[in-house]
Amino acid sequence: MLFRSDLSRASRLLNHGPTVLVSAAHGGRRNVMAAAWSMPLDFDPPKVAVVLDKSTFTRRLVEASGEFVLSVPCRALADATYAAGSVSGAHLDDKFAHCGLAGLAGDAVAAPLVEGCVAWLECRLLPEPHVQQAYDLFLGQVVAASADDRVFRQGRWHFGPETDALRTLHHVAGGAFYSVADLLQAKEPQ
Amino acid sequence: MLFRSDLSRASRLLNHGPTVLVSAAHGGRRNVMAAAWSMPLDFDPPKVAVVLDKSTFTRRLVEASGEFVLSVPCRALADATYAAGSVSGAHLDDKFAHCGLAGLAGDAVAAPLVEGCVAWLECRLLPEPHVQQAYDLFLGQVVAASADDRVFRQGRWHFGPETDALRTLHHVAGGAFYSVADLLQAKEPQ
Repeated sequence: MLFRSDLSRASRLLNHGPTVLVSAAHGGRRNVMAAAWSMPLDFDPPKVAVVLDKSTFTRRLVEASGEFVLSVPCRALADATYAAGSVSGAHLDDKFAHCGLAGLAGDAVAAPLVEGCVAWLECRLLPEPHVQQAYDLFLGQVVAASADDRVFRQGRWHFGPETDALRTLHHVAGGAFYSVADLLQAKEPQ
Repeated sequence: MLFRSDLSRASRLLNHGPTVLVSAAHGGRRNVMAAAWSMPLDFDPPKVAVVLDKSTFTRRLVEASGEFVLSVPCRALADATYAAGSVSGAHLDDKFAHCGLAGLAGDAVAAPLVEGCVAWLECRLLPEPHVQQAYDLFLGQVVAASADDRVFRQGRWHFGPETDALRTLHHVAGGAFYSVADLLQAKEPQ
């Protein structure tokens, strides 16, 4: 079910703009938060950007460990994703458990992946203190990537009615998420 | 049809991860390109981030003018959006015309908006030479925002079957775009 994605295709996992879960671990603590604001930054080596507010506990763990994981949740995880975006983990024993989420060990980083997601990007922080401080903007190099091959094969997403619960989430506001549907092939340009 | 969006809601225009058209103008030239890699960066004042490759003519115009516009295209503009992402405007008289796109005057910047899109964010470049050079990453402050009130009202998107052609585009690969559909309301977290 999980397959290790060709790293040069890792940007495809975020290309269509899904909401992600950001997770990190340090000093015996782990945490997870939802982020609608992330994007690919480069193809090869693949890089990503994500906005982590100063108030978040996940950000503290990212800064301390120099690592993070972006997991791409699906419709089956909509409630847990909204919870992960609404509650701080700073004063919880384990926000994963609180939100009904489970961690999985990654291939390349100590930060946990989120079980039940449809794609995972394991990242090493590219330290850029100025933009981290001024804009809450964190950049990372993707060092491992994997996806659920029921919906991501041959380097691209394939969502269909038979995998409805595995479609990605695109946050509108207040816990309302659109999913993607209705693939449209544009005409080859001249 | 166009209404000026409350600036504090401008981030909602990009929250769900649509592909955008980036336009800019300088010294009598204008250009437009497609970008799957953009995201909101802050709420109030609203800021955005977008990746502009060194090879693009639009980037040169952004650097020279200090301004850009993000327009959010819809299904009706899928062919034009793919063309705008495939062809360079450096050696065309006018890439807008080449791609079948028309420009509209903005409220706050000289860069043109793209007609037929469903939202527009007029931006002033926040100069950050290091990340522009190292990561092709451009940051902007949104100084005016507007949207098509058939699909964006009360500070959020409302896509339905009656506005099918106005749904936003989410690029998968090679000119294949998903649209958003099937709104799902997550349960209020405890």
